[in-house]
Amino acid sequence: MEPIRQLGLVGCGLMGGSFALSLKKKGLVTHIIGYDANQEAMDLAKSMGVIDSISSSACECAQGSDAILLAVPVSATETTLAAMLPALSNDTLVMDVGSTKQEVAQIALDILGKRNLAHCFVPAHPICGREVSGVQHALSDLFERKKVILTPHAALDADPAAAATRLARAKDVWQSLGCEVFVMSPQEHDATFAAVSHLPHFAAFAGLLSLLHQTQGLNYMQFGGTGFSDFTRIAASDPVMWRDILLSNKKEVLLQSRLLRQQLELMESFVAADDGVALQACLSRASAARAEWPRKKCSE
Amino acid sequence: MEPIRQLGLVGCGLMGGSFALSLKKKGLVTHIIGYDANQEAMDLAKSMGVIDSISSSACECAQGSDAILLAVPVSATETTLAAMLPALSNDTLVMDVGSTKQEVAQIALDILGKRNLAHCFVPAHPICGREVSGVQHALSDLFERKKVILTPHAALDADPAAAATRLARAKDVWQSLGCEVFVMSPQEHDATFAAVSHLPHFAAFAGLLSLLHQTQGLNYMQFGGTGFSDFTRIAASDPVMWRDILLSNKKEVLLQSRLLRQQLELMESFVAADDGVALQACLSRASAARAEWPRKKCSE
Repeated sequence: MEPIRQLGLVGCGLMGGSFALSLKKKGLVTHIIGYDANQEAMDLAKSMGVIDSISSSACECAQGSDAILLAVPVSATETTLAAMLPALSNDTLVMDVGSTKQEVAQIALDILGKRNLAHCFVPAHPICGREVSGVQHALSDLFERKKVILTPHAALDADPAAAATRLARAKDVWQSLGCEVFVMSPQEHDATFAAVSHLPHFAAFAGLLSLLHQTQGLNYMQFGGTGFSDFTRIAASDPVMWRDILLSNKKEVLLQSRLLRQQLELMESFVAADDGVALQACLSRASAARAEWPRKKCSE
Repeated sequence: MEPIRQLGLVGCGLMGGSFALSLKKKGLVTHIIGYDANQEAMDLAKSMGVIDSISSSACECAQGSDAILLAVPVSATETTLAAMLPALSNDTLVMDVGSTKQEVAQIALDILGKRNLAHCFVPAHPICGREVSGVQHALSDLFERKKVILTPHAALDADPAAAATRLARAKDVWQSLGCEVFVMSPQEHDATFAAVSHLPHFAAFAGLLSLLHQTQGLNYMQFGGTGFSDFTRIAASDPVMWRDILLSNKKEVLLQSRLLRQQLELMESFVAADDGVALQACLSRASAARAEWPRKKCSE
């Protein structure tokens, strides 16, 4: 791909730092200017060589950048986009890395739309682990062989040429970093990840809490084996990040949680009725599907 | 410990075979006579040297054995115990290896009680993985550094001396195999494992099914990452074994599933109300508890 002349990195954490290091490693960027509300994080990124220069605001960071990565918490997106709006031009590519997409796509449409620059923003969600945080854990190969989902807003269909150009550029960038790129609507994205990521986290948190609320809960926990360990591992995830994700994807999360409760209730009714046939049919279907995952693709 | 003169191994599968190999490796048994309803499994156990001789019935297998391990499905326990009853003597140690204990403890009490031999039976539950099955996967170190729970029936308090002798012998055997031995009531055991094992399995099965019932479920699944993978791993478990476990521990499983649904509903109400404070408090408590597990013990 044609290298990025200047990347504006807004948010110098694990994701932003890894994006910067990945581009540098592959020689796909000439200069990286960074900004972080946390001065220490920004200085560390500079001293590690993750960014080449620092800036005093999101707006200054955007100034003159042909590509901008927003790697800030979802809750900071609106303020940040508004701050950098004056510095954007018609050709700028702006992307984020958040775990939910409908909210951010709408925010970008509202804010960038004021200057008819909504086509500049391509919402992105790279699917990769985040057990640790901070630029000190940034990796130059974090995105290699990972999936990334791009979710252009349907409203951009009004200006298909500009939107298509920006989307093609975004694809180019992620593919150059070793990603497999998928394109879907923000709605489709949020429904998908509510099902395979947000609900599992929500249920793992709930499972732990249900145990903790029981008088003997901590006693019980000492007998947990590998099944318990795996099932609850994601309950150790960052509470603030997950609060934001769950609230940001409220409608889909509530739907998935309700569907899970209904399924639990149905299976409870089989157990209560000693209906071994119906129960085994449930368990067999789940077991077979899980055993063949992840080979099962939508095209099969 | 004083070696076993003759072990009667009823059920020559992974668990039974591993028990036999472990005793042999440590020189703790002189002769092992095996029985399995499946002739092939029994022949394989003999040809592998897991057992020294074969028998034609559970009763013949019990005849002359000073220790007997019942390593059959929970659903076969009643018939098997009844079949071997005539061959038991006052000194025989009989143990099982099932994942639920109230049912089996009661069955043993009823059947062995007919000859006043209820004290011979010490229900045992070794906590170790079972991703594979069959004697060909038996390991001589399967029980090393694992927990085993012994659950003598409270009714045996009527004859405390005989029960204590048998329990001490059972402890001796498992400790000699490298196990950490815990003693609790069958009720306490089933409540504990409903919480840390049966419910996680039940919920993992339900989570998978909930997804499979959705039109886009298989599409969604292809975007599942490591969180989804860990959360659902145990949904690939053996459906027949888990049908039996869930039905055998019905009351406790239903309680745990109801508590999980209530917790989900509570957290849903926080999400629905955009109550970030309450939601974060939940997630933080769960996250902290999971992060410090398994160091958290009941005595702390």
